[in-house]
Amino acid sequence: MFTVAVCMAFLACLQAQELQGHVSIILLGATGDLAKKYLWQGLFQLYLDEVGKGYSFSFHGAALTSTKQGQELIAKVLESLSCPEDMEPGHCAELKGQFQRLSQYRHLKTNEDYMALSKDIEAQLQHEGLREAGRIFYFSVPPFAYADIARSINSSCRPGPGAWLRVVLEKPFGHDYVSAQQLATELGSFFQEEEMYRVDHYLGKQAVAQILPFRDQNRKALDGLWNRHHVERVEIIMKETVDAEGRTSFYEEYGVIRDVLQNHLTEVLTLVAMELPYNISSSKAVLQHKLQAFQALRGLQKGSAVLGQYQAYSRQVRREQQKPDSFYSLTPTFAGILVHVDNLRWEGVPFILMSGKALDERVGYIRILFRNQAYCAQNEKRWVVDQSQCLPRQIIFYIGHGELGSPAVLVSRNLFRPSLPSKSWKEVEGRPGLHLFGRPISDYYAYSPVREQDAYSVLISHIFHGRKDSFITTENLLASWVFWTPLLDSLAHEVPRLYPGGAENGFLLDFEFSGAQLRFCQQQLEQLVPGPGSAPMPSNFQVLTAKYRESPLISAWPEELISKLADDIEATAVRAVRRFGEFHLALSGGSSPVPLLEQLATGHFGFPWAQTHLWLVDERCVPLWDPESNFQGLQAHLLRYIRVPYYNIHPMPVHLHQRLCAEEDQGAQMYASEISALVTNSSFDLVLLGMGTDGHTASLFPQSPAGLDGTQPVVLTRSPYKPHQRMSLSLPLINRARKVAVLVMGRVKREITMLVSRAGHEPKKWPISGVLPSSGQLVWYMDYEAFLG
Amino acid sequence: MFTVAVCMAFLACLQAQELQGHVSIILLGATGDLAKKYLWQGLFQLYLDEVGKGYSFSFHGAALTSTKQGQELIAKVLESLSCPEDMEPGHCAELKGQFQRLSQYRHLKTNEDYMALSKDIEAQLQHEGLREAGRIFYFSVPPFAYADIARSINSSCRPGPGAWLRVVLEKPFGHDYVSAQQLATELGSFFQEEEMYRVDHYLGKQAVAQILPFRDQNRKALDGLWNRHHVERVEIIMKETVDAEGRTSFYEEYGVIRDVLQNHLTEVLTLVAMELPYNISSSKAVLQHKLQAFQALRGLQKGSAVLGQYQAYSRQVRREQQKPDSFYSLTPTFAGILVHVDNLRWEGVPFILMSGKALDERVGYIRILFRNQAYCAQNEKRWVVDQSQCLPRQIIFYIGHGELGSPAVLVSRNLFRPSLPSKSWKEVEGRPGLHLFGRPISDYYAYSPVREQDAYSVLISHIFHGRKDSFITTENLLASWVFWTPLLDSLAHEVPRLYPGGAENGFLLDFEFSGAQLRFCQQQLEQLVPGPGSAPMPSNFQVLTAKYRESPLISAWPEELISKLADDIEATAVRAVRRFGEFHLALSGGSSPVPLLEQLATGHFGFPWAQTHLWLVDERCVPLWDPESNFQGLQAHLLRYIRVPYYNIHPMPVHLHQRLCAEEDQGAQMYASEISALVTNSSFDLVLLGMGTDGHTASLFPQSPAGLDGTQPVVLTRSPYKPHQRMSLSLPLINRARKVAVLVMGRVKREITMLVSRAGHEPKKWPISGVLPSSGQLVWYMDYEAFLG
Repeated sequence: MFTVAVCMAFLACLQAQELQGHVSIILLGATGDLAKKYLWQGLFQLYLDEVGKGYSFSFHGAALTSTKQGQELIAKVLESLSCPEDMEPGHCAELKGQFQRLSQYRHLKTNEDYMALSKDIEAQLQHEGLREAGRIFYFSVPPFAYADIARSINSSCRPGPGAWLRVVLEKPFGHDYVSAQQLATELGSFFQEEEMYRVDHYLGKQAVAQILPFRDQNRKALDGLWNRHHVERVEIIMKETVDAEGRTSFYEEYGVIRDVLQNHLTEVLTLVAMELPYNISSSKAVLQHKLQAFQALRGLQKGSAVLGQYQAYSRQVRREQQKPDSFYSLTPTFAGILVHVDNLRWEGVPFILMSGKALDERVGYIRILFRNQAYCAQNEKRWVVDQSQCLPRQIIFYIGHGELGSPAVLVSRNLFRPSLPSKSWKEVEGRPGLHLFGRPISDYYAYSPVREQDAYSVLISHIFHGRKDSFITTENLLASWVFWTPLLDSLAHEVPRLYPGGAENGFLLDFEFSGAQLRFCQQQLEQLVPGPGSAPMPSNFQVLTAKYRESPLISAWPEELISKLADDIEATAVRAVRRFGEFHLALSGGSSPVPLLEQLATGHFGFPWAQTHLWLVDERCVPLWDPESNFQGLQAHLLRYIRVPYYNIHPMPVHLHQRLCAEEDQGAQMYASEISALVTNSSFDLVLLGMGTDGHTASLFPQSPAGLDGTQPVVLTRSPYKPHQRMSLSLPLINRARKVAVLVMGRVKREITMLVSRAGHEPKKWPISGVLPSSGQLVWYMDYEAFLG
Repeated sequence: MFTVAVCMAFLACLQAQELQGHVSIILLGATGDLAKKYLWQGLFQLYLDEVGKGYSFSFHGAALTSTKQGQELIAKVLESLSCPEDMEPGHCAELKGQFQRLSQYRHLKTNEDYMALSKDIEAQLQHEGLREAGRIFYFSVPPFAYADIARSINSSCRPGPGAWLRVVLEKPFGHDYVSAQQLATELGSFFQEEEMYRVDHYLGKQAVAQILPFRDQNRKALDGLWNRHHVERVEIIMKETVDAEGRTSFYEEYGVIRDVLQNHLTEVLTLVAMELPYNISSSKAVLQHKLQAFQALRGLQKGSAVLGQYQAYSRQVRREQQKPDSFYSLTPTFAGILVHVDNLRWEGVPFILMSGKALDERVGYIRILFRNQAYCAQNEKRWVVDQSQCLPRQIIFYIGHGELGSPAVLVSRNLFRPSLPSKSWKEVEGRPGLHLFGRPISDYYAYSPVREQDAYSVLISHIFHGRKDSFITTENLLASWVFWTPLLDSLAHEVPRLYPGGAENGFLLDFEFSGAQLRFCQQQLEQLVPGPGSAPMPSNFQVLTAKYRESPLISAWPEELISKLADDIEATAVRAVRRFGEFHLALSGGSSPVPLLEQLATGHFGFPWAQTHLWLVDERCVPLWDPESNFQGLQAHLLRYIRVPYYNIHPMPVHLHQRLCAEEDQGAQMYASEISALVTNSSFDLVLLGMGTDGHTASLFPQSPAGLDGTQPVVLTRSPYKPHQRMSLSLPLINRARKVAVLVMGRVKREITMLVSRAGHEPKKWPISGVLPSSGQLVWYMDYEAFLG
């Protein structure tokens, strides 16, 4: 009976093997460092895991080295492979022997080489009577070699019909959005999206790979906790003690953000922030949800980052790259970034990303700290670890190294007892005296992997099983670059703070945030290193105040100007609310106010939005939700961030009875009467205007037959630009305002700024010259380019 | 030269004495506990402080006791008075002798007694050639005696012209808004507002009295910190170890909220929360700002409180008040309250007020904990106390007792070095090993008073100097009752959680908040004490599914029902967005949907709000911002929490051309055409309805001439309830919906639920019976009280 069963199992196994077919794995760059260190071992591990489960394998180590030399190198690597600790040595030796026999070196360079490889595989299949399941090409080669290899594979080495092709790509995947897209387009001309597996080895780290399963298996406990009401902050950290010595030629081109944050830490961020799909074993659902998380990320600004550079770095670059003594690098080796996720789940929760070289310890972790929302009625001496809600509550995915020395998942005992797969995770043995994240290790339910696995082994297994959600899709990659590129651009000329390295850094690199702005805790009095060939930027960004057309003029660099104007608007608002209980603000459309709106939306927490009424200065005759609509701009850059009561928002009624700006719908009159009903004396507290290159303001264009004078407060006008039909406040109404601010930015405005400065009161010619509040105040805000050219 | 100077000083002193005049202080209830324990000592301290500064004094201890007995009692008290520690004994004895000579007992009862007192004072003034400066009457008597005494003082014992009268009143000042107002009105008929000094002795505690001066003297450091961006929470705590034994007859009437929170802790709250006046030595400015702080307090709800009662309490009441064994008291002896201050400075910051008897320690403190907004780049082992922004940062006003044992002001060293008046506050001497609020005492700049002073001594000095800001004005008192009375009313029948008392309380009284709701951390499985006449609640909250009027019925306890409905709405929304890209939801007004809206707003993070269109089922003809408006309910309970694009929100146009529901404005037709333009086939994805006790639904009332049939999709109707004019979707339009949910809650609906269950299709009689989607689904959601009664 027993023999029969074994026999039948053996037969089933043979049948399965025939059913599943043969897989050829071609490791390109098989003699390189990465291959020697991780990839061969990963392939061996794959073999150990999968052998006897229905597939047959062949492993082809390919490189440009001559066949003989390559064979020797490979033989050496194969000899050094190791089995899991718990495997019986004889069994290990046997399996290792099998693996060695299935592995061979090949010189692969020309298209013909690829054709030959393909033929050899086909011949072997035919010879052994095997069906082909698929081919895996692992690109462990520099990116410049990608295109040629990809072309050859596509043209000459695809598997036969019915079998799959998987190509595995290693970073870097471009170094900004444009280059990443070029690379993706190029690869896309050779491979289908589903054929490409872009590796971010962080996704193979056991603690990182556990994030989604942990969220899934602890849904019940986490459902109520995993959101802005309960999470105080998320820290995503990778600290290194090593520096970039010996690698500066690579590092100079990338820097810490491209090297670590744009890829590893961002991937982790999306795993934490994404909505959890119903079925996390569906790669498609996971990838979709991840992509949605990217879309919810709030754009980064210069102020979202702090940068550092260890002091020896520039010297190392000079030495390694033969640069002159006068050379100083601006490449950051340390970055702290504050990310906000703008959705209902995460709004307002700071996600702190940090990485750096030459720090005081090597450690990586994701820490979710929960808010303390309890008050404990007893003296703290009587608080008991697993009962008191007043002690810190946190979940930590400990990636490795650090004081713990191994990957781990930690959950504060006063939070909940987590569920982890007991086959692969076990409770950490007692480590008395060890403190982590402010608490003794005994305060946590702490789990570590039963068997520590290298990230590449994990990923090679995922490639084999087609688990695409552990890899970076093209969409995902581009979304990440869309997110990071503007920040990288804006930081390109920033001088990083220098730090000595190691424990000596002290608290020099500690940083703090207020609103969306990051800054180092310790203010530095002087900058030690000048930028490359840069005249030092004026460090005191003084705001110039002068007169323009006999009214106050405020002039500065764009960022300072916007900041000053935003401050002035807030001050006006606070004053109005204090005096009258409400603040009536009329805003212009166009692109100039966009940074202003975003500054107000995200940087001004004291703004009395609940008492603010928002009016439009002018509107294009399109539906409110049209991308051309001024109101849509207001929605996108301001309203979505703040909380103004619905009935305090006053879009212009350009769209009535399903038609646009029809005279007979009396939209202009309607708006005028709404103003007269709600705004005392029809005097807005503040009207924000712009100025066109033709001297227009609001939607009042030169020679306009309406709105420049007369008694109609709101008028329909025509613009020389599309869409032609407009609605606009009239000059007489604008001039009733308590305050009018005119914002003029950019070199393109230089000429009109000059012309208007000399003009008299000629509203027919220059409508802007008709702006002169009868009893209110007029202030010009011009950036240096508009004002000085 | 020296002699001359002394002589001149002596003369100046004599002149000053003549200039300032004579003060008579009449202590009513001079033989009572409070007087014996604190007030005589306070008067003596006043004498010590003020003697030789230009006033002369006489002290009249008054009571109802006979003169002889009273004199003896007083003599005893006067003998026990003590001088400050640092006073030389001989000097002390001399001053004590002077004070004893100036003090005398008087029997004061009838109006004649008061007249006699007044005459005696006048005679003494005349005899000694003194000018009268003023009279202080200190009411240390039960409140029922106030009126008679006040009347007598007013009619017969006011000081002469040009001299002031100050009457000092001790709590309780009423026990709710109405009684406090009555008492205030009564007193107001005898005294001017500026003559009354209501004592809250907490305002005389040295640490409490230091709050405003501390905020003033550390303005520079605090200006940026004292707000919601930096403060994480404020705790205002008074813990007692004693219980109410021996005082239950008083305590039964008051309870912990009236005894401690409404007065002491609320006063402290306003001192922390109020805007700091420019000049804090102006009593008027301080009192005004305090009053404004009251006005910013968000109203308390039942859910803002957790209540407890120590286990022995009911037994003590039974014993002390001869109650039957069946008597159980509902009086709370412990309360935790969550207060929010709704202004720009404090929005969202939890103010936690807590007090209780029979707790584990006696201590009082105000703790301002600041947010950690830093990330510290080094391992926590390397954090240095006064540099690391990652260690807790807090300011504590330590009222007294507890482990520190004396009043103190503590400021974390990583915050700033505070400035305190060095004459009256000194740095705390080393107390190694002492931990306070999670940190060793060495982590704080810690100051304690140079000389500890009893609160009554401090206040008596303030009365003498007319510092009204240390006392409770009538406006202040009534504002406090306006704040507390609704909560007290709503809690009147709540059963407090029982606790054993002392350290054994464990974490039974720990509480936590989410949003504005407080609850005990540990859920109690059963209530140990039955409420008066309440049946125990069923503990298994199962959701019942059945049929009602041949449509699916879902029934449960309110909380589960709302939760189920919210889940169903989200599922419907997700499905609709997946299929059609948008979700059209029509919502009813009224009070039933409020918890539903809040649940959707704060608990459903995956809700596709950005793709959701919100429509109104019906509306009252009032402006949108009117509290009666259904839309205003939507704004208050849903819109303010979520982010729906402006143009996806569709309030009913009941307010056009500055008038309400005028036929000729064609609002109903406008809404109908908006629906037809945006909602495919005019079929809402989901319509949420309610049912009135008269069988109405939407704003379709029995016998309505419009909306029950016909072709008008939206109609103007009349309600039998105010406001009468309404706009409503019609039954035919409702019945086009893909899904209709009817939510019915509360016992009051029981009868109509029964009637309608038996009714046929009789929309004229019961409009709700006309709800029957032509091709969509109808689901009834009823709580057990509405369904089962």
